[in-house]
Amino acid sequence: MAVVLAGHSYGKAENRVVRFQRDTPRHEIVDLNVTSTLRGDFADAYLTGDQSKVLPTDSQKNTIYSYAKEKGIASVEGYALDLARHFVDDVEPVTGARLDVDSYRWTRAVVDGAEHDHTWTRSGGEVRTAAVTVSGKGAAQEAFVVAGLKDLTVLKSTGSAFKGFLTDGYTTLEPTDDRVMATSLVAQWRYDEQALADGFAFDAAYDAVRAAFVGQFATLDSLALQQTLWHMGTAAIEAVPAVVEVRLAAPNKHHFLYDTARFGVENAGEVFHADDRPYGLITAVVARDDVPAAPLAWER
Amino acid sequence: MAVVLAGHSYGKAENRVVRFQRDTPRHEIVDLNVTSTLRGDFADAYLTGDQSKVLPTDSQKNTIYSYAKEKGIASVEGYALDLARHFVDDVEPVTGARLDVDSYRWTRAVVDGAEHDHTWTRSGGEVRTAAVTVSGKGAAQEAFVVAGLKDLTVLKSTGSAFKGFLTDGYTTLEPTDDRVMATSLVAQWRYDEQALADGFAFDAAYDAVRAAFVGQFATLDSLALQQTLWHMGTAAIEAVPAVVEVRLAAPNKHHFLYDTARFGVENAGEVFHADDRPYGLITAVVARDDVPAAPLAWER
Amino acid sequence: MAVVLAGHSYGKAENRVVRFQRDTPRHEIVDLNVTSTLRGDFADAYLTGDQSKVLPTDSQKNTIYSYAKEKGIASVEGYALDLARHFVDDVEPVTGARLDVDSYRWTRAVVDGAEHDHTWTRSGGEVRTAAVTVSGKGAAQEAFVVAGLKDLTVLKSTGSAFKGFLTDGYTTLEPTDDRVMATSLVAQWRYDEQALADGFAFDAAYDAVRAAFVGQFATLDSLALQQTLWHMGTAAIEAVPAVVEVRLAAPNKHHFLYDTARFGVENAGEVFHADDRPYGLITAVVARDDVPAAPLAWER
Amino acid sequence: MAVVLAGHSYGKAENRVVRFQRDTPRHEIVDLNVTSTLRGDFADAYLTGDQSKVLPTDSQKNTIYSYAKEKGIASVEGYALDLARHFVDDVEPVTGARLDVDSYRWTRAVVDGAEHDHTWTRSGGEVRTAAVTVSGKGAAQEAFVVAGLKDLTVLKSTGSAFKGFLTDGYTTLEPTDDRVMATSLVAQWRYDEQALADGFAFDAAYDAVRAAFVGQFATLDSLALQQTLWHMGTAAIEAVPAVVEVRLAAPNKHHFLYDTARFGVENAGEVFHADDRPYGLITAVVARDDVPAAPLAWER
Repeated sequence: MAVVLAGHSYGKAENRVVRFQRDTPRHEIVDLNVTSTLRGDFADAYLTGDQSKVLPTDSQKNTIYSYAKEKGIASVEGYALDLARHFVDDVEPVTGARLDVDSYRWTRAVVDGAEHDHTWTRSGGEVRTAAVTVSGKGAAQEAFVVAGLKDLTVLKSTGSAFKGFLTDGYTTLEPTDDRVMATSLVAQWRYDEQALADGFAFDAAYDAVRAAFVGQFATLDSLALQQTLWHMGTAAIEAVPAVVEVRLAAPNKHHFLYDTARFGVENAGEVFHADDRPYGLITAVVARDDVPAAPLAWER
Repeated sequence: MAVVLAGHSYGKAENRVVRFQRDTPRHEIVDLNVTSTLRGDFADAYLTGDQSKVLPTDSQKNTIYSYAKEKGIASVEGYALDLARHFVDDVEPVTGARLDVDSYRWTRAVVDGAEHDHTWTRSGGEVRTAAVTVSGKGAAQEAFVVAGLKDLTVLKSTGSAFKGFLTDGYTTLEPTDDRVMATSLVAQWRYDEQALADGFAFDAAYDAVRAAFVGQFATLDSLALQQTLWHMGTAAIEAVPAVVEVRLAAPNKHHFLYDTARFGVENAGEVFHADDRPYGLITAVVARDDVPAAPLAWER
Repeated sequence: MAVVLAGHSYGKAENRVVRFQRDTPRHEIVDLNVTSTLRGDFADAYLTGDQSKVLPTDSQKNTIYSYAKEKGIASVEGYALDLARHFVDDVEPVTGARLDVDSYRWTRAVVDGAEHDHTWTRSGGEVRTAAVTVSGKGAAQEAFVVAGLKDLTVLKSTGSAFKGFLTDGYTTLEPTDDRVMATSLVAQWRYDEQALADGFAFDAAYDAVRAAFVGQFATLDSLALQQTLWHMGTAAIEAVPAVVEVRLAAPNKHHFLYDTARFGVENAGEVFHADDRPYGLITAVVARDDVPAAPLAWER
Repeated sequence: MAVVLAGHSYGKAENRVVRFQRDTPRHEIVDLNVTSTLRGDFADAYLTGDQSKVLPTDSQKNTIYSYAKEKGIASVEGYALDLARHFVDDVEPVTGARLDVDSYRWTRAVVDGAEHDHTWTRSGGEVRTAAVTVSGKGAAQEAFVVAGLKDLTVLKSTGSAFKGFLTDGYTTLEPTDDRVMATSLVAQWRYDEQALADGFAFDAAYDAVRAAFVGQFATLDSLALQQTLWHMGTAAIEAVPAVVEVRLAAPNKHHFLYDTARFGVENAGEVFHADDRPYGLITAVVARDDVPAAPLAWER
């Protein structure tokens, strides 16, 4: 037998790019965490230490920051596409590039009732994500755009049940008709080729998908977090025609009713302990059946 | 010489209390992280292991959760006062109690343009804090209320200079007339005895102090983060008559202009690297000069 | 077109199991973080909310804790295999199970020069991992064991170069013959079917792989982190015959020589700033060429 | 009334200094996180924005890194004293300086049974700390050295009881004769003026204090974590004559016996759930009664 290099990649992770638009007195801010990953035949760097095909990760960093000015950031997805295409098209040994971007939200400060021109507070909470993959040179080149969000913590105080489940010798859980349901959602959705056209409305698509998620979570009388995820995924696909596949991972953040009856205090779904660990973890992939799978879009 | 027990305290930290108001179809949520600290003569527990004066931290936990229903949480500060007074008044060996509370913000979900009755998304970003201290039994009892916030990240893209500073043989920093200024503010402010009256408007006071902070940060043409802190503190005291002392700790979160001129790309204050460490750390205590200091209010 | 459920799974994450062996005065400790993931046809739970095939994650938790006593934890991998086989064999709708386990190391306390019988200090640093997958019922059942470690931070102060790399218009990095090399290694390695036999020496295999990693990192005069990873992977395969595939992800934790010459102080590779972000990120898959790939072993 | 600046300080936090000794083929590593805090009359910087007395935090950073070479780091405490004295003695407006240092432990890699000359693995677990304060100019100058550790997680599987405690209407805890006791210790201890002499054996003192802590934790048949802390503090003072005051903060990391009897499985103190929150939090200050208090040594 022989030992072989069966896979490899490299890049620069977590470039903290902050870009201001200062052309008018009302400035704009974009705040990103950008990771590049390059693919190609870099086997010599591993096998013999020959770096002649390896563009340093330091150069990738320089490019990431420079492109924020050269190309601008009209949309995060477009900026990531520009970078991915540059690495594949302009750096000879690179045959594939993936750009992962986290985008942090800022809210314009309000001073005396008016939005301030050049001051913001960081919004916290959920982070918007993008993962763009470009693969192949020239005419055979493919590109994939996956948008997403993470750490969207959403909670409902009623309208959620869990009952009728399978039991075994280790089952002690009581069924319930009314519980707190909460999750810290991680979601990604893949766009079809419409997203590759100039001027695709990424922000509007994001807002529509997020609204679909929150709307379903809120309004569905849920029989399980699984059912809620299914409705969230289908609603996103129905809301935005360019969305062809949605991947959801949802921790079931348990809220346990605190037993205050021991102290003579009634607690009718009012006081809970928010527990840390363990937690349920539910996943779902929801997709259109008329669109081929795209494993490359998801490969890290 | 002898070795003595020169100080001690004990309590239950990080009780994750979630309280819903469900009296009408439109529910309300309060989401807290509550820490109790008890003081008194518990020396025997240390010196001989005699626990007869020690109310278990488990009992403190039970009380914290039960009071969320028994007394309710009309305001976080009031709930903390209720708990602190209970421990001092009702548990014989306890002569002092401190309650530290972090309060997490939730935003009512919007579905089809309307606020939802029982679904929220967690807001992230800054955390509101309260620290309530009750000391002494009976007529000699004192109480202190300190409100606060942490992790309020605020940034301005212009309107900040740093120049004219002292230099020594290790100084390489260039003075600047225009830089990015950003901080993740930790602030606490002490109320006078007005806060002990029933119905004190804690939420309005908090909003006014926060607005004063953000307003000064935004509008002051800053010569240093120090100057900005001074203006933030004085503005808070001027905005809310019950505020008598403000303590501020502000990391100077450095944003370094990225040198893209090396690639022929001009960068006029547009693209920055947001650095993690090290960071400046500036503190200030701003106080009214007609109010005595209250070290007990601040002792952890 | 229609929308379909294209994938799903569920389980209980981060069960913090601590298991003592107390049969003799010299106790033993095993400290684990256990996550279960079940697969099967649970589509009804998503599509209609019917939970009749869903064993609650709470029951999985109970099983995880109970098996720590029922079956014991002779090895972490064996315990995970017991659990995975139980879920697949004994819970009718379950057709696949994955158990992910983090194992925290403790060091026996030394008191007056002797190891203590029932006191330990937590070792910190790297975490040992295991990922066991069982798929299929009855005769067709397959099982895969992947061992690993994460957060093994290793650093060398010399014996590392980086030069002869590709340059482009964004390249400003200077080549170097002598730099600090440091990484916080994440590694996983797949065993062949030898690991499924009773009594396979998992601990000895782990120690041998870890020693191979550290030995190669230390002794190779490295031309790049890529080259070091290749040597680490091949050494692991050569050290343990049951290892057939190694996956490595290594952040290049940059240490920048501090420019003290500005103050008249020579710094010949002695004083560095350890930077946080960005960092390089290098991956490699090293495998025997005579063993088929096993994608199921890696699927989360 | 007027509003006044009642307190202030500033400095550079979290300088990640890595220092190698390369004078012989067997290198040495020191890995630090250094924070400087300067005190003095910097009121103008706050009140008017006049920075003429303010040495930039950037200059402090440069000094911190440069001193790692100029003065060397024979001991962390000595290096911190050098820095603190420099800021007070050599920077005119500075009248007080505090240096806080975290020190990360590395273990020399073992290759083929021998310690390697220039490769280490990071040890993880507890962090050694130092806090040095220099106050006042010239003959009136005082200096204080506080050593410490944090995140020393220590656990015993028996030899700990908790019973005979005070009960009230909220008490549901059962007394126990045998429980798991675990804490993640934060400790600081103040040395007297012996520590200011050249060549004070800081490492030996640290080792002796740590051994005293672990020894008492292990061997005392504990009636409460309070009692254990008292014995730890007194043992440290008795072990090292220069130690005059010990401050301890110890979370009581709860391990709950898992109720497996529900599944017919006996669990005699063998399987526990390690819970995250809430946790008890016990503090103690143990001091010699013949040494005056030194509040300046502790002021952050």
